[in-house]
Amino acid sequence: MKVLPLTCLNHLIKDKKNQELQESLKSLSGFEIADLIEKKTMSDRLFVFTLLSPQQAAETFDYLSDKHKKQILRSLSSTQIASMLTAMRSDDRTALLEELPQQVVEDYLKLLPAEQRLETLTLLGYPEDSVGRLITTDYIAVKMNWSIEQVFDYIREYGRDSETIDVIYVVDDAGILIDDLRLKEILFHPKEYKIAQITDQKFLALSVHEAAEEAINIFKEYNRVALPVVNDEGVLLGIVTIDDILRLASEENTNEVHKIGGSDALDEPYLETPFFELIKKRARWLVILFVGEMFTATAMSFFENQISRAVVLALFLPLIISSGGNAGSQSSTLIIRAMALGEVKLKDWWNIMRGEFLLGASLGLVLGVVGFIRVSLWGTLGHVYGEHWFLMAVTIFFSLIGVVLWGSLSGAMLPFVLRRLGFDPATSSAPLVATIVDVVGIIIYFTLAMVILKGSLL
Amino acid sequence: MKVLPLTCLNHLIKDKKNQELQESLKSLSGFEIADLIEKKTMSDRLFVFTLLSPQQAAETFDYLSDKHKKQILRSLSSTQIASMLTAMRSDDRTALLEELPQQVVEDYLKLLPAEQRLETLTLLGYPEDSVGRLITTDYIAVKMNWSIEQVFDYIREYGRDSETIDVIYVVDDAGILIDDLRLKEILFHPKEYKIAQITDQKFLALSVHEAAEEAINIFKEYNRVALPVVNDEGVLLGIVTIDDILRLASEENTNEVHKIGGSDALDEPYLETPFFELIKKRARWLVILFVGEMFTATAMSFFENQISRAVVLALFLPLIISSGGNAGSQSSTLIIRAMALGEVKLKDWWNIMRGEFLLGASLGLVLGVVGFIRVSLWGTLGHVYGEHWFLMAVTIFFSLIGVVLWGSLSGAMLPFVLRRLGFDPATSSAPLVATIVDVVGIIIYFTLAMVILKGSLL
Repeated sequence: MKVLPLTCLNHLIKDKKNQELQESLKSLSGFEIADLIEKKTMSDRLFVFTLLSPQQAAETFDYLSDKHKKQILRSLSSTQIASMLTAMRSDDRTALLEELPQQVVEDYLKLLPAEQRLETLTLLGYPEDSVGRLITTDYIAVKMNWSIEQVFDYIREYGRDSETIDVIYVVDDAGILIDDLRLKEILFHPKEYKIAQITDQKFLALSVHEAAEEAINIFKEYNRVALPVVNDEGVLLGIVTIDDILRLASEENTNEVHKIGGSDALDEPYLETPFFELIKKRARWLVILFVGEMFTATAMSFFENQISRAVVLALFLPLIISSGGNAGSQSSTLIIRAMALGEVKLKDWWNIMRGEFLLGASLGLVLGVVGFIRVSLWGTLGHVYGEHWFLMAVTIFFSLIGVVLWGSLSGAMLPFVLRRLGFDPATSSAPLVATIVDVVGIIIYFTLAMVILKGSLL
Repeated sequence: MKVLPLTCLNHLIKDKKNQELQESLKSLSGFEIADLIEKKTMSDRLFVFTLLSPQQAAETFDYLSDKHKKQILRSLSSTQIASMLTAMRSDDRTALLEELPQQVVEDYLKLLPAEQRLETLTLLGYPEDSVGRLITTDYIAVKMNWSIEQVFDYIREYGRDSETIDVIYVVDDAGILIDDLRLKEILFHPKEYKIAQITDQKFLALSVHEAAEEAINIFKEYNRVALPVVNDEGVLLGIVTIDDILRLASEENTNEVHKIGGSDALDEPYLETPFFELIKKRARWLVILFVGEMFTATAMSFFENQISRAVVLALFLPLIISSGGNAGSQSSTLIIRAMALGEVKLKDWWNIMRGEFLLGASLGLVLGVVGFIRVSLWGTLGHVYGEHWFLMAVTIFFSLIGVVLWGSLSGAMLPFVLRRLGFDPATSSAPLVATIVDVVGIIIYFTLAMVILKGSLL
């Protein structure tokens, strides 16, 4: 990546040359200013920021890191915040307000002019994680009876604020969406043509209530730069642009990975998350998992007698139960990801259960053979497991099959159960699956041992 | 999502009405045709596909699922494949050929006209996972001395194939990139203005050698729809568009999640991956982890005496070592994700190690207290751990601190080690971290037990 050098701006900032700096900043775009101040000290950052016009401030703000956004909001006067919020695009404004505490949002809303306040309230009224929250109202809509020349005049007048002009939208008098047209298609027709002559009335639109996650998959499938959003009556409410979708997809993925790893999702980048926030997000799950794992001690206490009679059984316990946990972790992450991509739906559970049954049994067989060989080798060459090494190897063999099968099945089914109950499937983290598998794994292992080793070791 | 009904097409397909169908298909876009045939039988799909013009076929093909793409390639004649490949956009063609075996690629390349063959070979020559592989050459480039009117004439003539006309590029006679201009900026100027009058010569460009993963982060940060790609001399080679970036980001995330779950990344959707492929991808890691986990049996055999004297020690073993694994899984996934987002670099390792030291100790303390209370309650109320319950509780307390601390540290450092060695950090899966922590956890636990319980239980 290269950006042409931003000469001498650094000096202007250092020497606090207000007027010259303000002049130079005018020729910069929002991302250039953000790039410039992101690495500065807080006071320099604020100094530059207050020199910007509301439009530039709004644009620059959008490119700053979350941490710096919060710092700047805390330092600006309410008049400054008001003019910046007003100048923001509606989707960026909604995204910003979403992140703030309710009280702060209400204070900010009061600062906005009536029109923007109403618009923001509407957007904030859609459920979180719905397409409604991503809407921007900065787009170009035209009517059927307009000529292409009229369209271009209109774009020249109002296009400056539009997020994209690659696509423009055709609506009727009631605001109902009739068509989407790519600007380049329009360019190829004579100026006097009416829109009605070139529209095919076929379009792809998102419903305002649709889950934002679903929108990601639609964008990916249909290669669009922007998609119109309609309400139940088909009225065009705004558009969603792919840059917001890319950001959202990245956030969703981060949440998913954090959950799979067994902690609550972090709201901010790892390095910027305060220490006590990190403790809280991690300790909660660690304690839940710990309490779940306590049942292993309970399960083991039922087999205390067996262990004291054949300590060799305890030696293999971590090996056996962790293999089940590993297989479970594989299944659950594969299913969680397939669900997020929309490849696997709730109704597929039976298919997947059958598949994982075969898979789990096969994988268990593979590990069972490796385990059998390991115990046999040590048993015959090293004589470490005494005279009953063969029965011990058989126990290990069948336990691995049972435990890996149980791990695969429970790992694959847990995301379905969670989703059915309305939770995020990604909550079935690798550690959670391992915990469930551990308890049952102990029971499988010792029960098989009691059957196979009865009369010999036990 | 709603698409206007594709009336009676289904009937035309069913009744194999070639001519009428071919006529109706002409008015459909690629994604509509893909949507129409995706749910049909293989023979219907092929029937429709062969009725399409090469352009339409290429466009439709791009929207099909990977499985159907492969089926169709296998069924088409080489002439049909040749004309479809020629009509494809360069980035889509590169992406398709990347997926195919070397021999097939060579066969296909021979079918292409000289110009496209050269272009494809160049793109395939860039390293996998580099920006070079994502380049499309369908963009609009103009010169400084052109008037705005000339630009529009040019777009009208050549813009039809361009992926986006939201942005056009200004190059000099040597092809060196000078500026990027948004079409809407151009619209606002009088027709007779020269490009030189409106350019600011500031732009953001990707290097052709840049990692594709890095490009994702740049697109996310700078809200761009397309970015130009230049070589070391600054010559414009093509552009990368955000729709390809969105797809790539999704693929990268899927790979990451699969690896974190402890299997090799799947190349195809879970439900479409053949059974033996799934076994292979999962068994490899399960066996590696199993062999690693065998060291737990070795570690435990050193403490066989202690276990036989105090079986109660074995009861808590799964609880202790899994807590370390859970903390490790949290740290490793947080770091893996932060690395993928570019938030954490190799040089941050020392900072993170210090942070995780404090975090691990604090989290260990939390679990230690919970564990201490658990053992004390059962010990005093249930008398299940005999007279030495207090010393046992102390052992559990310190073991948890040690094991969780070790888990956090090794979980956080493993991604750094892997990246330093040139591996994907995501390979430090939750199961791999758990395995490493298990072996050391056993040693920590029994060593502490020997010190604390000496003279009482041991």
